[in-house]
Amino acid sequence: MVVVSQGVPVTDRGFQFGDGLFETLAVKQGMPRLWPAHRRRIEQGLRQLRLSLKQIDWPALEETMFAEAAAQGEGSLKLVVTAGDSARGYARTAGALRWVVIRGEVAARPAEWWRNGVQLHLCETRLGSNSALAGIKHLNRLEQVLARAEWNDQTIADGLMMDSHGHPVCCTMANLFVVNGNQVSTPGLATCGVRGVMRGQILMHAELLGMTATEEQIQLEQVITADEVFVTNSLIGLWPVCRIGDRPVSVGPVTQILLELVATDALVPG
Amino acid sequence: MVVVSQGVPVTDRGFQFGDGLFETLAVKQGMPRLWPAHRRRIEQGLRQLRLSLKQIDWPALEETMFAEAAAQGEGSLKLVVTAGDSARGYARTAGALRWVVIRGEVAARPAEWWRNGVQLHLCETRLGSNSALAGIKHLNRLEQVLARAEWNDQTIADGLMMDSHGHPVCCTMANLFVVNGNQVSTPGLATCGVRGVMRGQILMHAELLGMTATEEQIQLEQVITADEVFVTNSLIGLWPVCRIGDRPVSVGPVTQILLELVATDALVPG
Repeated sequence: MVVVSQGVPVTDRGFQFGDGLFETLAVKQGMPRLWPAHRRRIEQGLRQLRLSLKQIDWPALEETMFAEAAAQGEGSLKLVVTAGDSARGYARTAGALRWVVIRGEVAARPAEWWRNGVQLHLCETRLGSNSALAGIKHLNRLEQVLARAEWNDQTIADGLMMDSHGHPVCCTMANLFVVNGNQVSTPGLATCGVRGVMRGQILMHAELLGMTATEEQIQLEQVITADEVFVTNSLIGLWPVCRIGDRPVSVGPVTQILLELVATDALVPG
Repeated sequence: MVVVSQGVPVTDRGFQFGDGLFETLAVKQGMPRLWPAHRRRIEQGLRQLRLSLKQIDWPALEETMFAEAAAQGEGSLKLVVTAGDSARGYARTAGALRWVVIRGEVAARPAEWWRNGVQLHLCETRLGSNSALAGIKHLNRLEQVLARAEWNDQTIADGLMMDSHGHPVCCTMANLFVVNGNQVSTPGLATCGVRGVMRGQILMHAELLGMTATEEQIQLEQVITADEVFVTNSLIGLWPVCRIGDRPVSVGPVTQILLELVATDALVPG
């Protein structure tokens, strides 16, 4: 890991309150992948958090992103944007936002996770509901941290999280999809969860393939019994799912087609 | 403001995910007030976040707190404890937690707020429910940040926040109490809100005064029509409330007695 910014002051509102956003994106052949979509999500997140887009020097930010991607070659970039500094208290002070860029290596993961599928832990930690924070990749991630702390087994790739009503929403670091016949579905994110950039790519690719792509409430039993189940994020691209908790899940052909379509923009083993 | 720790690395999990806790406490005559209660709450918070108390050098932390309080004289200390560092991803790595101490001056606020009461904004931003995070003063404070961003009027002292069912819970930076006859009540915090140190002091003092002190669900209309309403935190001690949104609220004698009882441990104007 290379840290472009060496540190932040303790007055940073990201540090004090999690008042900010982040993006994690794949770097391949020296390029930040799907950057326009990541930038759009940061912009949407800033609006939702009522932060001004004008308080960022976007040309400087983009120049840094592309320069660091070129220096990294293959791996990842993490961009963190915070509400800047304030002395104390929840009230923001006017002024520039802070952004930092952190370079990362390609994480070492078994190639068979992409071929044969991954095991998911079924998390006990639930996602609270708040439409004011839903969908964006903000810095308040204690629910994901507590969920991730539920397992130590290195053979488990991620954990499936449910909302307070017991409906599956997403994994700690990935979005969830089920395939049934000609239909690809993923849970809606009106009250919790993160609207992943790769999630958007999958919905787009599914429609281009002539499939029906929907966002809808899905019951846990529907996930278990689906024709195919897979999870996505910007670094891994897509993993088929072969097991959730102690229940086997089907891996199938639609998942493999979608994996090939997103492989150029993610860190998929060659 | 004096910053004891000049900054934190961007690998800090407080900065990355809000993975940590904080305390804000009054400093009077060079002493950190109610320190044992604040330390107990940090310990409870660490347990609830599944962080090890052994990963903190408590004698060094306490020595710093008392030294900084002595240097400050009158004002505040903010203690932030985070889950330490990790490169990327929600999984924690073994190792020491990080703690930083930040000194603050006495905030300039009108003395009549303590005498005649304060106005509260009625917040639109709701508190999400998650028992895993409820009660502790963790670093995921975006709901409070968004609520605080709802008003700019300097004559408004704080904002009253409700849960997703519309039940009043607390203010952005203070706990809520209502008085009716011989009974002092404050909302329960099983699913959201912060269990304030001053809240605990008030409940204790009310019982010592021979009153009934209860934690219970309170409807907004019950707050508006209560004999007395007040809010508390460790810095201000206690403010009577004279208005919530556009509704006047009663200020009364029980509030004044409780204010006198907590004044020695908070920054109440002389």
